[in-house]
Amino acid sequence: MADVAKSASLAERLLAGEKRALARAITLIESDDPAGWELVRELYPRTGKARIIGFTGPPGVGKSTLIGALTGELRKAEREVAVLSIDPSSPFTRGALLGDRIRLTDHFLDPGVFIRSMASRGALGGLSEAALQVALIMDAAGKDDVLIETVGVGQAEIDIVDHADTIVLALMPGSGDSIQALKAGVMEIPDVIVVNKADHPMTDTMVREVRGVLALSQDPEGWKVPILRTEAARGEGVEELAAQIDAHRKFIEQAGTLAERRARNLRSEVLGIATSRMRRRLEQAVSEDPATAELLDRVVRRELDPATAAGELLEKHVDG
Amino acid sequence: MADVAKSASLAERLLAGEKRALARAITLIESDDPAGWELVRELYPRTGKARIIGFTGPPGVGKSTLIGALTGELRKAEREVAVLSIDPSSPFTRGALLGDRIRLTDHFLDPGVFIRSMASRGALGGLSEAALQVALIMDAAGKDDVLIETVGVGQAEIDIVDHADTIVLALMPGSGDSIQALKAGVMEIPDVIVVNKADHPMTDTMVREVRGVLALSQDPEGWKVPILRTEAARGEGVEELAAQIDAHRKFIEQAGTLAERRARNLRSEVLGIATSRMRRRLEQAVSEDPATAELLDRVVRRELDPATAAGELLEKHVDG
Repeated sequence: MADVAKSASLAERLLAGEKRALARAITLIESDDPAGWELVRELYPRTGKARIIGFTGPPGVGKSTLIGALTGELRKAEREVAVLSIDPSSPFTRGALLGDRIRLTDHFLDPGVFIRSMASRGALGGLSEAALQVALIMDAAGKDDVLIETVGVGQAEIDIVDHADTIVLALMPGSGDSIQALKAGVMEIPDVIVVNKADHPMTDTMVREVRGVLALSQDPEGWKVPILRTEAARGEGVEELAAQIDAHRKFIEQAGTLAERRARNLRSEVLGIATSRMRRRLEQAVSEDPATAELLDRVVRRELDPATAAGELLEKHVDG
Repeated sequence: MADVAKSASLAERLLAGEKRALARAITLIESDDPAGWELVRELYPRTGKARIIGFTGPPGVGKSTLIGALTGELRKAEREVAVLSIDPSSPFTRGALLGDRIRLTDHFLDPGVFIRSMASRGALGGLSEAALQVALIMDAAGKDDVLIETVGVGQAEIDIVDHADTIVLALMPGSGDSIQALKAGVMEIPDVIVVNKADHPMTDTMVREVRGVLALSQDPEGWKVPILRTEAARGEGVEELAAQIDAHRKFIEQAGTLAERRARNLRSEVLGIATSRMRRRLEQAVSEDPATAELLDRVVRRELDPATAAGELLEKHVDG
């Protein structure tokens, strides 16, 4: 009962936009505290208003700088902003926040901006799950824009960005591998493409290559993916980025595809949470139950094949 | 009974190295035929002899060409070779096999070489599972080397290459994103690095960058990752690649880490198979059971939060 009361009051403070309440709620979710889940359950009907904008792209292209600059732009329009970084290579995540390159200090003092990072390693299957809960909490806290930063490598990261209403892919001159991945269809076409570090002499070549790839693909919704040049460290091109994010938002609202995207993402999130819970349950069984550990040892000794062992594992710990 | 008899005879033909039996067995696995699983169960104690070599790297770097050239090199030493490609952008997978660039026609006529591709899309969670079963079957069929080609994007692909004893990362001049991913620690350091298309003027720069990244990392097993230059389309550097794969093999055998790697990989494979079966079971429930579909619709209507819905899903279809 005490827990419920505490959670209710935290919910109230969070809905009132109190920064410390939001920080506390995220810590509860990160530490897998039941009170965190309870809070999301309670606040979920109050979500769905924020724009969820995902930023993906290889490390080193300057996603954090871009997000920092965009945050400044969004603040000019008096929008409340939350940033969630799950890129392990990001300066947000690394805590190296005070570089002169990024004027994040300004944002830290701004009550209209909330910045939080989550580590990408160690959270076996649970990272994507926790990140999406955090995005919901930020939404409920009244943020107008939730910016999620993730590196485009690994399934957990891809799952996270899939939750966004608008996906921005950041590249830079030299991002040859990403161009090849887009061309080969192994990376999905995003909604907005930014070529950052645009003062580089190879920028024109990169923009031309991106345009070549886009010419081969056709967005089924009819959206024409813009290719922007930014020099985020100097704020160049960031106003245009904000404008294109607005334009994409209007487009998916009018085409009715925002609702479709969200429905698809939420359905897949439920399955993702259920699956990762199952995975953790099985891992726990392996580490705690000697008979289950022996089952795996038999596989290692080539006595029992992996698929049969998986079947026995499910029978014992799921169906049993 | 008829099925068991057929499977036994298929197993015998497969163990005798019959190419058509191997092809048939793989088709059974791909189509999720129970006879395929039964076959792997039966043959599993006969596996573990082949070297499993994983080739990863972004699309377009010439992994297939490299594998084609390496196959020729391995054949000179009279080793039996199987190639399994799960890179959707690979010419192997695409079926564009007869380009003059790759002399695969030679290998097709060679009874000592077996080439097979699997599609990377559509197999929800089950691709990695099926690919590893196929690798086991190739091993049981007496292949000395099983070469697995995969694009280093997405969790399924990473799972697959994790099954290898030796991991070769192929890059090319312009692979800036991969270098950044290695540097940031979001991509794991492989055992051998190949810079292909080495006649490119930027090769020296790329090799220098790779060397810079490796200087920052220390292999816990003590292996010094070689950086090779190849021009696979002309066969250049491929002899050295074969030699370095040999050297890595000897190293992990002597250090005792081959057994450790395999044990770790097999344990994680069992958990992976179990998890992906659970996922498919839940997906089936959603598509077939109206009450479960309604559960997800309530999430979309923001009446029920995703985590609570996931809990109800598990209760109903797993614990119930």
